[in-house]
Amino acid sequence: MVYIAGEEMTHYASQLIVKEWIKPYFETGAWFEYDLSCVNRDKTGDQVLHDAVAKGAEIGAIFKEPTITPTKEQVEEFGLSSPLGSPNGAMRKGWNGITISRDTIHIDGVELGFKQPVLFERHAVGGEYGAGWKTVGRGKLLTTFHPEKGDPLLVDSRDLDNDHNVAVVYHNPLDNVTDLAHHFFSRCLESEVVPYVVTKKTVFKWQEGFWAIHKSVFDEHYKEKFAAKGLLDGTGGELQHLISDAATMQIIRWTGGNFGMSAHNYDGDMLTDEVAQVHRSPGFITSNLTGKREDGVMIKEYEASHGTVTDLWHAHLRGEETSLNPLGLVEAMIGAMQHGAKLELEAGGPAENFEKVMTWTTTLRKAMHNTFRYGQGTRDLSGPTGFTTEDFIKKVAWRLERYLIQGEDETAPELSEPDRAFRRNHKVDDEAVQEMFASYDTDGNGSIDLDEFTNLLVKLGVAPQKVENKGKEADI
Amino acid sequence: MVYIAGEEMTHYASQLIVKEWIKPYFETGAWFEYDLSCVNRDKTGDQVLHDAVAKGAEIGAIFKEPTITPTKEQVEEFGLSSPLGSPNGAMRKGWNGITISRDTIHIDGVELGFKQPVLFERHAVGGEYGAGWKTVGRGKLLTTFHPEKGDPLLVDSRDLDNDHNVAVVYHNPLDNVTDLAHHFFSRCLESEVVPYVVTKKTVFKWQEGFWAIHKSVFDEHYKEKFAAKGLLDGTGGELQHLISDAATMQIIRWTGGNFGMSAHNYDGDMLTDEVAQVHRSPGFITSNLTGKREDGVMIKEYEASHGTVTDLWHAHLRGEETSLNPLGLVEAMIGAMQHGAKLELEAGGPAENFEKVMTWTTTLRKAMHNTFRYGQGTRDLSGPTGFTTEDFIKKVAWRLERYLIQGEDETAPELSEPDRAFRRNHKVDDEAVQEMFASYDTDGNGSIDLDEFTNLLVKLGVAPQKVENKGKEADI
Repeated sequence: MVYIAGEEMTHYASQLIVKEWIKPYFETGAWFEYDLSCVNRDKTGDQVLHDAVAKGAEIGAIFKEPTITPTKEQVEEFGLSSPLGSPNGAMRKGWNGITISRDTIHIDGVELGFKQPVLFERHAVGGEYGAGWKTVGRGKLLTTFHPEKGDPLLVDSRDLDNDHNVAVVYHNPLDNVTDLAHHFFSRCLESEVVPYVVTKKTVFKWQEGFWAIHKSVFDEHYKEKFAAKGLLDGTGGELQHLISDAATMQIIRWTGGNFGMSAHNYDGDMLTDEVAQVHRSPGFITSNLTGKREDGVMIKEYEASHGTVTDLWHAHLRGEETSLNPLGLVEAMIGAMQHGAKLELEAGGPAENFEKVMTWTTTLRKAMHNTFRYGQGTRDLSGPTGFTTEDFIKKVAWRLERYLIQGEDETAPELSEPDRAFRRNHKVDDEAVQEMFASYDTDGNGSIDLDEFTNLLVKLGVAPQKVENKGKEADI
Repeated sequence: MVYIAGEEMTHYASQLIVKEWIKPYFETGAWFEYDLSCVNRDKTGDQVLHDAVAKGAEIGAIFKEPTITPTKEQVEEFGLSSPLGSPNGAMRKGWNGITISRDTIHIDGVELGFKQPVLFERHAVGGEYGAGWKTVGRGKLLTTFHPEKGDPLLVDSRDLDNDHNVAVVYHNPLDNVTDLAHHFFSRCLESEVVPYVVTKKTVFKWQEGFWAIHKSVFDEHYKEKFAAKGLLDGTGGELQHLISDAATMQIIRWTGGNFGMSAHNYDGDMLTDEVAQVHRSPGFITSNLTGKREDGVMIKEYEASHGTVTDLWHAHLRGEETSLNPLGLVEAMIGAMQHGAKLELEAGGPAENFEKVMTWTTTLRKAMHNTFRYGQGTRDLSGPTGFTTEDFIKKVAWRLERYLIQGEDETAPELSEPDRAFRRNHKVDDEAVQEMFASYDTDGNGSIDLDEFTNLLVKLGVAPQKVENKGKEADI
């Protein structure tokens, strides 16, 4: 597979993980490694990015550590000769990006935000990300389309009557939405979750095509299979459409999980961040780009959904203890290794290699999850007595070795929760919490009973709801 | 003022409210009434909509009941001669819409979602709502701007290489963003909340202008005043920008309230629905359109944030009891009456009329809120023993008369919460709640203590946070 290295805390942790968890079991010498740190991109005139993208397209399985897109200040700080753009654009283009999948990560026996999985597809192309625009004054804005053959077509003509306007034009390419829909529905089916297609098509009429393609793929290839699993029982037997602004509400209400959403590029950007927050933090969300090589092979790039974790890196540099939860990174590595193994198998490689990777990933997940369940997890989940970055990685390595080599099996206890989840991204305001507690403890007896609890859930807008699917009038 | 009537349950309740709460104290014969029911719009060839908009522009203060924009099925059901569009577009255009303000509604002594107010401005024009578009194949898309004077300008040229694309073009008119910014900051200052401007400008570069206008208005007219009230203590003394996708996360985290957001049209659509959900339901959110007549007079239209409540209407028609919470409707009526009184005063009307409206609205709010606090509210807040639509309106009328005419004063008790908030929009899944309760009651003693509670808040992603304002790297 292709291994793209980034920087700061997540680079440090990834390197440790490769050393402790992967190298004892696999030959990593065959990996193609690219260093996308700012300094190296600058040094190579960004040739390294082009090489990484080209090799990624050739191999088809990519793991990427978080990288930095330098701000003006960072260009100076790192002594770069010129500003560097985000590598994302080059990757989506070079790999014919279809969808960015962002799913909730779950730990056996530990509850985060959503109880069951939430799957998300964000169309990887189109929308305002690729828009052209100009600041203009009063006058006429004309948009015309000139087909390869035939007469030009007027797309839009409008008079601008303000002194100060911005004119914006973009297009949504729809050819790969069929692939997106297959990817989405097959994943939903495998995870047994209810699929929803999210658009604003009731008002933004041009979004009808995105829905129509999904609907046609669904009805032809998936409807019966979903129905057979009972996944359409709550939706009247049909694929459901959800208006994007209604989706912002349902994401807060459907904390039981077990649903999937497929959306346009910008809606997906907004809604997956909302999902991440409801599920606690971006540390518990995957981020995988799926593209397609011209010969039809699926290119898959896996990364964590978070950044380079600068604050912990600076603490580490100061010699302080850190406790980075590597779950997002590891799920990305697992994904890339599994896809690489699958491609190798499909290309005629030996089945035993594929089996070995599958066994290893299953065992690794169990070793990680059990480590959390023994209270030896990182401090975001295990509290102040949790393990450091290094100790956690060592502990999992020890457990992995016991399970994998010595064939031990064990059932870890259900996690006994720490006094307080110490979350890196969260500084809980204790006073405010005490006030809230008092306000929900309406009989003032120092504890919250089931009635008070139900009330609290309703007030917080997070009470689990019976399925209802009435939709919502379009807000225009 | 102008009174725009709609239909179904909210029309029924509004008429009752006018009869019971308003007519005893005010001469409503001078109101201009327009019936925007589907049947009447159809009968008049939509002339009634044009008349209502024209009169609204003339008078400047408008109350609007929820209306129906008929679906294909409803066109048949109501026997309409042709489909009817949403009246919103005509209103925003006819009144030079600047902003749609959607704020949380609070009841003294009752806690909903956000503890303190959340204010929202959604730019009433621009964005994809007014987009032109076409479905096109392969070819070149050309957008040019032809100014009133001078040479044409190329806005964008792009090659479309898919067989199936949609091309989309729109513009954001920016002239009224200065008015929007004044409206936003003066409201935030009055309510003493921290203002945030929300855009995706880090990636959608053309949104820089929206932010720049806000920033310039703020620095010139408001910065010192906000600083003097300590409202910039947590923001480094400056106006803060928030990336739109980060805003989806903060809305869930900042349940303490006391913040305001100003956003583009579509972002405002998405984010205000999210705010509504966190604050329990759209029933507790206002929806006010502010425009500007050519002579500078502010036109303000007030409506509830919810629809016509069809399900309760059907229950009412079947002769069943209903319990509609009219808070959103009433806040809209109050707003329109206050604005009308203010315009009349500014036009040289007698001060006593203005004073009378102000006293009445303050007293009405107290009568309503106290009725809730005596457990005589509607069933969404007062539980199954709560009052019906009609009884609630009568009870408030009785209390209003006592306070207003007989000059009585009373302090209602803090609301003793019902066993369970029966929410019209929510069907709580009791089994799922019991499961959740058990999972948070980690010591299994049948109640949740402060530690378990803190944990629960963190898990649900709703723990109050200490202020942090680091922003978030752009996701592109």
